[in-house]
Amino acid sequence: MKRTHYCGDLSLANDGEIVSICGWIQRRRDHGGLIFIDLRDRTGFVQIVFDPAISGEYFPLAEKARPEYVINATGKVSKRPEGQENPNMTTGEIEIYISEMEILNSAKTPPFLIEDDVDCDENVRLKYRYLDLRRPELQKNFKLRHQLTMKIRNYLDGHGFWEVETPILGKSTPEGARDYLVPSRMHPGEFYGLPQSPQLYKQMLMISGMDKYFQIARCFRDEDLRADRQPEFTQLDIEMSFIDREVIMDLMENMMAEIYRELLGIEIKTPFLRLSYAEAMERFGSDKPDLRFGMELKDISDIAKDSNFKVFAANVAKGGVVKGITVKGGEHFSRRELDDLTKYAGIFGAKGLAWMVVIGGEDKVKSPIAKFFTPEQIDAILGRMEAEVGDVVMFVSDNYDTTCNVLGNLRCEIAKRENLIAPDDNQFLWVVDFPMFEYDDEEERYVAKHHPFTMPMDEDLDILTEHPEKVRAKAYDMILNGVELGGGSIRIHNSEVQSKVFELLKLSEEDIHEKFGYFLTALQYGTPPHGGIAFGIDRMVMLMAQRKSIRDVIAFPKTQSATCLTTESPCDVAPKQLRELGISLRETDKN
Amino acid sequence: MKRTHYCGDLSLANDGEIVSICGWIQRRRDHGGLIFIDLRDRTGFVQIVFDPAISGEYFPLAEKARPEYVINATGKVSKRPEGQENPNMTTGEIEIYISEMEILNSAKTPPFLIEDDVDCDENVRLKYRYLDLRRPELQKNFKLRHQLTMKIRNYLDGHGFWEVETPILGKSTPEGARDYLVPSRMHPGEFYGLPQSPQLYKQMLMISGMDKYFQIARCFRDEDLRADRQPEFTQLDIEMSFIDREVIMDLMENMMAEIYRELLGIEIKTPFLRLSYAEAMERFGSDKPDLRFGMELKDISDIAKDSNFKVFAANVAKGGVVKGITVKGGEHFSRRELDDLTKYAGIFGAKGLAWMVVIGGEDKVKSPIAKFFTPEQIDAILGRMEAEVGDVVMFVSDNYDTTCNVLGNLRCEIAKRENLIAPDDNQFLWVVDFPMFEYDDEEERYVAKHHPFTMPMDEDLDILTEHPEKVRAKAYDMILNGVELGGGSIRIHNSEVQSKVFELLKLSEEDIHEKFGYFLTALQYGTPPHGGIAFGIDRMVMLMAQRKSIRDVIAFPKTQSATCLTTESPCDVAPKQLRELGISLRETDKN
Repeated sequence: MKRTHYCGDLSLANDGEIVSICGWIQRRRDHGGLIFIDLRDRTGFVQIVFDPAISGEYFPLAEKARPEYVINATGKVSKRPEGQENPNMTTGEIEIYISEMEILNSAKTPPFLIEDDVDCDENVRLKYRYLDLRRPELQKNFKLRHQLTMKIRNYLDGHGFWEVETPILGKSTPEGARDYLVPSRMHPGEFYGLPQSPQLYKQMLMISGMDKYFQIARCFRDEDLRADRQPEFTQLDIEMSFIDREVIMDLMENMMAEIYRELLGIEIKTPFLRLSYAEAMERFGSDKPDLRFGMELKDISDIAKDSNFKVFAANVAKGGVVKGITVKGGEHFSRRELDDLTKYAGIFGAKGLAWMVVIGGEDKVKSPIAKFFTPEQIDAILGRMEAEVGDVVMFVSDNYDTTCNVLGNLRCEIAKRENLIAPDDNQFLWVVDFPMFEYDDEEERYVAKHHPFTMPMDEDLDILTEHPEKVRAKAYDMILNGVELGGGSIRIHNSEVQSKVFELLKLSEEDIHEKFGYFLTALQYGTPPHGGIAFGIDRMVMLMAQRKSIRDVIAFPKTQSATCLTTESPCDVAPKQLRELGISLRETDKN
Repeated sequence: MKRTHYCGDLSLANDGEIVSICGWIQRRRDHGGLIFIDLRDRTGFVQIVFDPAISGEYFPLAEKARPEYVINATGKVSKRPEGQENPNMTTGEIEIYISEMEILNSAKTPPFLIEDDVDCDENVRLKYRYLDLRRPELQKNFKLRHQLTMKIRNYLDGHGFWEVETPILGKSTPEGARDYLVPSRMHPGEFYGLPQSPQLYKQMLMISGMDKYFQIARCFRDEDLRADRQPEFTQLDIEMSFIDREVIMDLMENMMAEIYRELLGIEIKTPFLRLSYAEAMERFGSDKPDLRFGMELKDISDIAKDSNFKVFAANVAKGGVVKGITVKGGEHFSRRELDDLTKYAGIFGAKGLAWMVVIGGEDKVKSPIAKFFTPEQIDAILGRMEAEVGDVVMFVSDNYDTTCNVLGNLRCEIAKRENLIAPDDNQFLWVVDFPMFEYDDEEERYVAKHHPFTMPMDEDLDILTEHPEKVRAKAYDMILNGVELGGGSIRIHNSEVQSKVFELLKLSEEDIHEKFGYFLTALQYGTPPHGGIAFGIDRMVMLMAQRKSIRDVIAFPKTQSATCLTTESPCDVAPKQLRELGISLRETDKN
């Protein structure tokens, strides 16, 4: 073993050199008395050639070699004969004539081919994850992931941040999603909780004067998994003292610009656009608007309320709104497609979807509801909607939130169906001034929109008690292409405001004391003003690598039932272990 | 809030500048109509002065300010008057005359003073950890810890390593120390295990062709805690393919040299000394020898066996050894001190400790056992022991292992008592060629000295079955000043050798299959030769920062009963949570 080069690094520049490489056999071809092997390592492929005249005693070894065998081979780099270059390989201009070779290990036939366009059930690939990870496209993702975290760390280090590790065996908190619990052997009947985020630890680090903290931290959430979630995930967690939110937003957008420039060669314009939550909802029907296409929402309530279309008029009369979007050139939509979009809108609560195809001429529009509008009203609507001949306008009439939400989703769906999204477009923005609370109908109480440690806007502090629904928070989300990359806020640094917020969330005195008592105490010992942000690293890598699933950027991901198919965990454990932990299995669940 | 500088960064170079600083009030002194405040932030202290003529309306605020209040203050940097400089402060040549000030937060009186020589029970400090962490000496540790991990990452990145994250919700393995378990909600009755190390994941990453992996990984061990252990700890985990152990040792010792040079300004000589396990035991009675002092062990069995001292002679006759150490200038030991050392030796199993004080003259030595030796034997012993007048030689006679172990510990204890250790001495070395197995009398079977994935030395492979006790492993430990910094090995890349080792460890077929089956399968699909190493980061920082406890380098450490006093975890959880997890508490344990 005396590797001198990686496979993919070789080129014509090495012509004539004796090199030694290690790797896996991708493919073997016997041809005209010669054996050609594509050898693969982390960097790529190179073609090696066994010629009996040169390889001598090693030629029979090459005959034995099969796919995924691990070998070490030494030979002379040569320019390929004219016409035999392979432009699809970075090393396609050369090949290596092997004079020495060792088979380092054999391999059973893999259950699927190690290649990028693998055609194999994902569960099989997850079971043999170590084989799946040999595929170049996956390896590329892990290289990128490594480069990303290096870049982030060096950027933050350069700005005076210290990485501090916070506990993983933490305290269970009942807020929000479920904690994973860890039974304590030393304190039978008691449990640690795995952190959903290092939130309170990082705030305590600010109280301790650490000033600028970050951590690329593992976090845990025992939720029923959606396609894009994992029970454990990685978060870039940041907190700083003595700052306002502009400082953080500025620092973070510059970080993203540096990352995209240096890792992807993409220039991102800074500063990012900042939209208030209210404006984002109003114009895009979403608090994570995708700005890669138009179709902004317009409000036609003022026109609709005077029309003869009862559905619209009555809804506006009782405080609802009528809003619409304009699909440029949408006239090609068939009736069936329009019905399908109506169905799609229904998923988000729309009771119907009204549409008008702009045809010009005397009738102006073709629409089942045209007859309820005067020509002047039609003109006014088309003017408001900036619709021209060939476009389709679509309307939803409901309460404000539902109307925005339906159109926000419809807008994205149509953009996808109509192929309106340029593949390399990256539209970053900040959404700010979120509502502090939202009302949870199920729990019949307010819940925190971000989390209960978020500072209300100064000017809203005095309506905190009377009008919690109107209070805005010093919160900010970074959005990329309709996806939330990260979110943060300025935190409450005053224990009275913090207690008040807990009260509004209807946490009982006892709950507050038991779960957050130590933190309320900490706030009283000289807490600096502070704030921070957190980014989902898995999602960030996924977007940067243009992958569709975060499983493609996690080495050993779990399935939607939170199982690791590679190691077969979770699994049974010995009764002795449970006894020592002071727990037992519930019979009913164990069958 | 418009901080322009950190407190500790100011100096005469800023003389005359208007600066704005933020921080905590360390101390207030009212003196001659002026108020002096030492303001503290992460970087240090600076003295600010309130003069009614300059501070105006802010002067009364300064009168209100108390220790640990958080303030923002703006003023002009001035050279201190002649004779009032404070050489103990880095900013001691200047002070700031404050023209504007805001109290950002008040503070209750802390339960202990925020200063380095704090005189307060550690449990109180751990409860108010956020206050404890304000102490400059602790903050310095976390800065160093951050710098260390940055340095490590950049070093490894520069050498082509990728950081890959492996799961924390892993598979429970029964080998070695205890796993923390996490009940699965989706699979009631089943459990995840928190990893004691990412060992099998990183080996699978090698099988996947990642080639060079590292991770600064959190690991977990549910052991009864000794002073220097934590239930969770941080490990620098490294693995690489297609290499032998020289490559890793070389890379790692250069990394340490770079770290010590750049972070501590200390030059370390490379390459490190390499001692075989056998030689380390023979000469230092330890597999982690402290080389900062002499007192090497010498064997006098050949002389002792012919003496009239039955204890020695009989022991040698039945295969035991007599070994000793020489304490230079040890003649000052009182009888009581010698008795005390004998007691100390007893802790490690010595049935006695024989000693000779070298007094010269006709008697040569003063010793209770002198009479059993001829003058020639005494001469031979003193010659072997390189003992001179004024020295003391001490002997232990037992089986080989006990003799070495007792003297190895005695040697370190005496060095400590005799103050033989220079404070800034850093003696690194490698110990290599460890035994593959050791016999566990309790379990009546061989156990792996390192771990069961360690490759035996090539030349010992054919005695694996017949003489496991003689097999040496391709293992290596990096030792600093008698402490194991890290350890690693070349791994088994052949599934048959791996199965054989499992057999020797008396793992049942069923156990092997259930716990390691997936890994044995993985080994069959083209595993490259590979090896790695792991370092304890907590301990490394502790040694670099010259601290006595790893709790000083962990932000929120746990006590010896694995409790976090800050957050009071572990704690009770709601019965509903347990029901969902399919577990219940055992009544007997709940009391």
